[in-house]
Parts: sequence; structure tokens; C-alpha cells
Amino acid sequence: MKLTILGCHSATPRINTNPTSQVLEIKNHMFLIDCGEGTQVELRRNKVKFSRIKHIFISHLHGDHYFGLIGLVNTFSLLTRETELHIYAPKGLKELIALQMKLSKSWTNYPLIFHELESKSSELIYEDDKVEVHTIPLKHRIYTNGFLFKEKENERKLDINLVNEANIDIAYYRKLKQGFDVVNEDGVLISNDKVTKDAIPAKSYAFCSDTAYNEEVIPIIKDCTLLYHESTFLEKNENLCKPTRHSTAKQAATIAKKANVNTLILGHYSTRYNDYNEFKIEAETVFNNVHLAKDGKVFNFD
Amino acid sequence: MKLTILGCHSATPRINTNPTSQVLEIKNHMFLIDCGEGTQVELRRNKVKFSRIKHIFISHLHGDHYFGLIGLVNTFSLLTRETELHIYAPKGLKELIALQMKLSKSWTNYPLIFHELESKSSELIYEDDKVEVHTIPLKHRIYTNGFLFKEKENERKLDINLVNEANIDIAYYRKLKQGFDVVNEDGVLISNDKVTKDAIPAKSYAFCSDTAYNEEVIPIIKDCTLLYHESTFLEKNENLCKPTRHSTAKQAATIAKKANVNTLILGHYSTRYNDYNEFKIEAETVFNNVHLAKDGKVFNFD
Repeated sequence: MKLTILGCHSATPRINTNPTSQVLEIKNHMFLIDCGEGTQVELRRNKVKFSRIKHIFISHLHGDHYFGLIGLVNTFSLLTRETELHIYAPKGLKELIALQMKLSKSWTNYPLIFHELESKSSELIYEDDKVEVHTIPLKHRIYTNGFLFKEKENERKLDINLVNEANIDIAYYRKLKQGFDVVNEDGVLISNDKVTKDAIPAKSYAFCSDTAYNEEVIPIIKDCTLLYHESTFLEKNENLCKPTRHSTAKQAATIAKKANVNTLILGHYSTRYNDYNEFKIEAETVFNNVHLAKDGKVFNFD
Repeated sequence: MKLTILGCHSATPRINTNPTSQVLEIKNHMFLIDCGEGTQVELRRNKVKFSRIKHIFISHLHGDHYFGLIGLVNTFSLLTRETELHIYAPKGLKELIALQMKLSKSWTNYPLIFHELESKSSELIYEDDKVEVHTIPLKHRIYTNGFLFKEKENERKLDINLVNEANIDIAYYRKLKQGFDVVNEDGVLISNDKVTKDAIPAKSYAFCSDTAYNEEVIPIIKDCTLLYHESTFLEKNENLCKPTRHSTAKQAATIAKKANVNTLILGHYSTRYNDYNEFKIEAETVFNNVHLAKDGKVFNFD
């Protein structure tokens, strides 16, 4: 699992700061999460192959989270993409993209499939044999979802020497990986744990931006490997959280602690601050394993 | 008159190339012409004060000419702008911006005034005591206008020594600047040309992008100081002009020559070319005073 931060700043794009966008590599998927203005250029800068992006998840329809999307959709067309593109986003985005296409008298030459979100409860929005994606309802000024990306349980690992010694036919390997005991060539039942090792633990990533402090996310993101939680403000400006429905670094850390996540990444910094290290220091008063998002930074969890 | 190129490349924004956008400073105005994705960052990079932009002209609704507009409109709001913003653009843009605002449950805190264009003939779309702006109907795949920015005739210059010698009352200075003969303190009629010098010639700028070769623009842009004409292709790829309705460098130069303009700037280069100097060389086979647009380049005509 690998997370690349394309942009992690709030409000407006500037010369050296980009609005929200991330790429999550998980089980051979390349999921794009949010798509602020300039995302297509940041994808190029970070050498992300456009063709590998097949799923885009948009948290909400504030400009700093999606104004780069139409440009990306358009560029995919100019590059004669043929692969399907799935967009998971709040209801309304499809109408908007359709209107933009109509005004330019064009449509994509690849299938563009919208999955419009409007539920206020967490829902499973993507699933295959390796990964699940669930929404995380957030509290913001407009309808907003975070996203929980979960690897499915990995298979147990065969200890091939012990398997051979135990004289087990190859036809049973799959059963062994799935955790079953099997009968060997001599008719003896072999206990699974004698010939296999524990699976690599499944990883998970929770993206929570933008949101006010909201304990309702805790059961959804419980025990996840990595949490990105917005921290627009420092505690000294907590008074700004209520009208804007954003969080402080300390509040983000409190959610991380209560949800028992392994690692916390902070981002979506307000432009009023110069020293982002203050966010880390503030969060570390509550939670130990805190990292700061930075445009172009890669977090590797393999 | 000063023209700053923010972006002059076709199709998609890339790491070092921006789609179309320009700022024209003329008679204390700061007109923004087209607004591809990333324009607000290029405005910052080129130190253009956001508050000085009061009029934005959009040629057509292909993404590389307007995808940065909604972000700019939004950023103006975040910066608590109060000054009116006028947008001159093909019909449809107002509906689109309104939908985007609706989806984010916001509206600008400054007056946003749309002037929707749909005429197929050249029309006067802006006028004050110093400047006029006219549309230049272009031939492209969708409804497209270029824009002609014209200074009004400047006033004649007083030769203050001669005026004093001629014993003319200050009350008549305005009449003199306007070219009239006046009566002096002694009751003698003073011929205007005895005490004034010719006015500085009025300048004009014609922006023609995107367009196929179109001689119908010639009477509109006749004798103008500066012409920016798209040259998406070189002559060796002229076969691409017809389906895409773009021009070659040679065609741009032919328009410049036939319209008897003073200076030609080329731009809107296709990404297929590496050496833009070939555009200049090709255009110079037809027209002498050719310059190449380049992102961040400033052309000064004072």
C-alpha cells in the first residue's frame, strides 16, 4: 500500500501548494482521491501513469476538491483513452460534467461511469476479490464523504518445506492458504498451522477530509492502518472550526487515538500558517505516530 | 499597452506548459483573455494583482480556454473581493458557473455579471472613454470569438511654451487637446497646429484563437498594432487544420500581412512540436515582424 500526496492544502492553488488530491496504490489498483485544480499536472510531475487510474473518488463538491476533474476527464479523451473510468462522487457532478461536455460539443471516447452518492450512512461502493471501498459520512458545510479502502484478508503463507515433508498433494495448497486442515497422501489429517504461516495482515486506509470533529467515524475506521485526517486549523484558532466545519490538529489526533489507528497523516492546512510543524507538535500531544502530508510526498506501507 | 502571456499551448496543461490565458494592460485596464486550468497560479507567478482584473473575455468553451475560470471566480470570493467582475463569454457559461455555485451551496460575495455572446457578427461589447472591445467572429469547431481591444484616439499634446506665448487662457486647453482652434486673450484666433503636437497614435490588439484560416477577420483587425493569431500547426501538418479547424503559422502570417498589422505573435502550439522556432521561420516567409508567445513572456508596446 502506497499513498502519494499530490496536494494537501486548503482553499486555492498557489505557486507551491496544491489543493487536495492523492493517489492510493493498493493491491495493484491506482485510486485517485479528490482532484483539485492542477491535479493532472501533479500526476505528471509524480509520474503516475494516467492509464492506471480507473477509479476516482470525490469527497465533496467544494472547488478545492474537484475543480481539476473535468480537465483530467478531458485530457484522458485527448490521449485517446479507451479504458472505463469510474467516478464516485456526490450527486450533481454527473449533471455538471455532462453540461460541460455539451457546451464543448464533445463526449469522452471511453466509457465514463458515474456512481452518484447521496446516502448519509456508510456504504460499500466498490468491491473486488482484493479490495473494498466504503464511504465514511463526514460533517462539513455540504454533503461530504470520506473513503475507507480495505484490503481483504490475505491468504496464509505456505511453508513449502514443511508442506513437502508432510506429503500433501498440490491440489490442496489452495485449501491450506485459506486456513483449512487437509488430508495428506497417506490419509493423515494435517493441521493447518503445522505447515502454514500467518497471512500478511490486511491493510486499510481511511481518508477523512473535509470534516468537523466527528466521533461517528470512529467505528467505521476502527483499527485501520493509516488515517489521513484533515487539520485545517491549530487549536489556537479552534473558534474557526464551527463556522467552517473543519478540524484542528488536536481533534484529528483525538479521532486517530479513539479509533486506534496505526498511523495518522495530517493535511488540508489553512493558508494562514507558515510552520506546518506546529500541526505535528500539537497532534503528538494526543497521538504518537503522526506524519505531515506534503505535496509530492510518498508514504509507503509495504 | 502591455501583453503578458500566461499560457500559450494547446490542449492540456503540462508541467512546463500552460493552456491559453493572457493579460492585456491597456489604458489602465487589466483585461484577462481566456482562462485555462492553472491560470490563477500563473497570475500569481506573474504578479498580476487579482483586484485589478475586472473584465474577463472567454473566446470559446473548449476546456483549454476556460477550465481555470471557476477556480478564479471562487478564489476571488475566498479573498473577499467586493469589486464587480464582468465575464464576456459564449452563452452557456453562466448556466455552468451557476450550477457549480449551487452544488457548493455558495455564491460570490461580489457582483458577478455575465455578458453572454451569441452573435455571429462582430459587435461592440465594451466601451468607456478610453477603450473599445469588439468581438471577432472566428471559425472553429464550436462558437468562438476573438476580441479586438482598441484605444480611442488620444488627445493632441499641448506645447505648453507655445501655448503660453500665444496667451491662451487655461479654460481653452481642453478644446486645444481636442483639436479645435481657439481665440486667445487678445481676441486673436490661434490655429490649433501652431500650439499642439500630434496625439500618440491609438494602439489596438486583436486576439484570434482558436480559428481556421478565415479572411473574414481581415476588415475587423485591419491596421491593428498587434495581432495574436493561433498557429496550432506547421504547414507540413496542414492536413490537420481542416478537421480540427485550426491554422498553420503560414496562415497566421498571411492574415497578418493581408490585414496590414504591425506585429504578429504566434501561439497555441500543438504538443507534437519540440522546436517552436520553426513556427517563426515559417511565418517569416510571409510576414516580417513575427514573435513567438511563451508562457510568462511580456510584450510591451509603450
